[in-house]
Amino acid sequence: MSIKTVGLDADDTLWHNEKTFREAEQYFVQLLGSCADKEIIESTLFLTIARNLGLYGYGFKSFTLSMIETASHVYNEAIPSSKMKEIISLGQSLMDKPVNLIGGVVEVLEALHKNYRLLLISKGDLVEQGRKLEKSGLKSYFDAIEIVSYKDKTVYEELLKRNRVNKNEFAMVGNSLKSDVLPALEAGAFAVYIPYDITWVHEMADEPDDNGRYFKVEKLSDLPELLKTINRKS
Amino acid sequence: MSIKTVGLDADDTLWHNEKTFREAEQYFVQLLGSCADKEIIESTLFLTIARNLGLYGYGFKSFTLSMIETASHVYNEAIPSSKMKEIISLGQSLMDKPVNLIGGVVEVLEALHKNYRLLLISKGDLVEQGRKLEKSGLKSYFDAIEIVSYKDKTVYEELLKRNRVNKNEFAMVGNSLKSDVLPALEAGAFAVYIPYDITWVHEMADEPDDNGRYFKVEKLSDLPELLKTINRKS
Repeated sequence: MSIKTVGLDADDTLWHNEKTFREAEQYFVQLLGSCADKEIIESTLFLTIARNLGLYGYGFKSFTLSMIETASHVYNEAIPSSKMKEIISLGQSLMDKPVNLIGGVVEVLEALHKNYRLLLISKGDLVEQGRKLEKSGLKSYFDAIEIVSYKDKTVYEELLKRNRVNKNEFAMVGNSLKSDVLPALEAGAFAVYIPYDITWVHEMADEPDDNGRYFKVEKLSDLPELLKTINRKS
Repeated sequence: MSIKTVGLDADDTLWHNEKTFREAEQYFVQLLGSCADKEIIESTLFLTIARNLGLYGYGFKSFTLSMIETASHVYNEAIPSSKMKEIISLGQSLMDKPVNLIGGVVEVLEALHKNYRLLLISKGDLVEQGRKLEKSGLKSYFDAIEIVSYKDKTVYEELLKRNRVNKNEFAMVGNSLKSDVLPALEAGAFAVYIPYDITWVHEMADEPDDNGRYFKVEKLSDLPELLKTINRKS
């Protein structure tokens, strides 16, 4: 029994993402700053995003719609059309941003794809994730691309079945305990947690207990060595 | 050489969709009717949708964002917050609508799935298409679900490869000449066109010439007989 297939999350595992949303949030709060307190705008946006997550899913379109809904609450009477245009442009600008790779990602994928089958397993909007992947230049390292709207045990089970991967030979790698680590472990696979500087509050979860299949590394470039160690031991 | 795998489009092939968007458009035009001419609102919405299609992709979130952008143009100075809330609700209501199956679809899938491998090949938003599929009750008829952000020759080629389907044994079935028929034929497969009552202007295209792989039926319930006929002849 050894790991033969590695699943990699994308946002904040292969490329930076959360920071872009945080910056956009700050810009949005400034934009509406003349009509309400910073704290009110922030908490309204937070609650609106949380309420819409189940309906809209993840990504920049959902985020833009939640910013707009927030504006419709923060402005009691009417929203200046110029402000609305700025919010729309802010949302669209998130799509045009260049993709900023995490340090060492090319070297890591270069090393891994020679020894493992690699699956990109990313949660989010289809158009957006597809575009980021194209821009990243990383597509050719992957044997399969799986873009899903959420990640739970069943999603991992279906995905492993679809790709003919044995759970005992699969490790999922990512920065989200909630989406990458816990459900992959629940599905019976290995999981490697690589913490990112900041975690979106909706992705927060506790670290699992040591069960022999859960591992944690500080940075992506530690991954090839960890996988070798796991395979040597098993 | 005979057809062994059938790809089926979803929106307006298995269930009604375009009508919902048309009704929402009419409702939106009425909603903004007090501030501009009907024709101006309609043409602004049309142009906004067309401009955003490449950036946003398909689906109800894209449509909602384009309605909002239209409002920011139609209202010169400021958009009443109550109107903005109504537009957002209108967009969200599209997600809550029950799925209305095309007549005879259950009988057809019941008959087909015994003799062919069935792939659902749907273009659009991941969250939205996933939810519609769940609501439709049709999921269990399909051997694989492929939700893609657009449909061109390359997408079909990749999809056939991923599902280990030979193009000479595959027929794509749908209501869009542009997305279902022409690119499937380009990829070397068979294609069956089932016209729907209304066609979204962005999906319009000319019918292909008869090349021995293109077929047209009036309604979905004619499909099983057509496939039998094709397989008898080849």
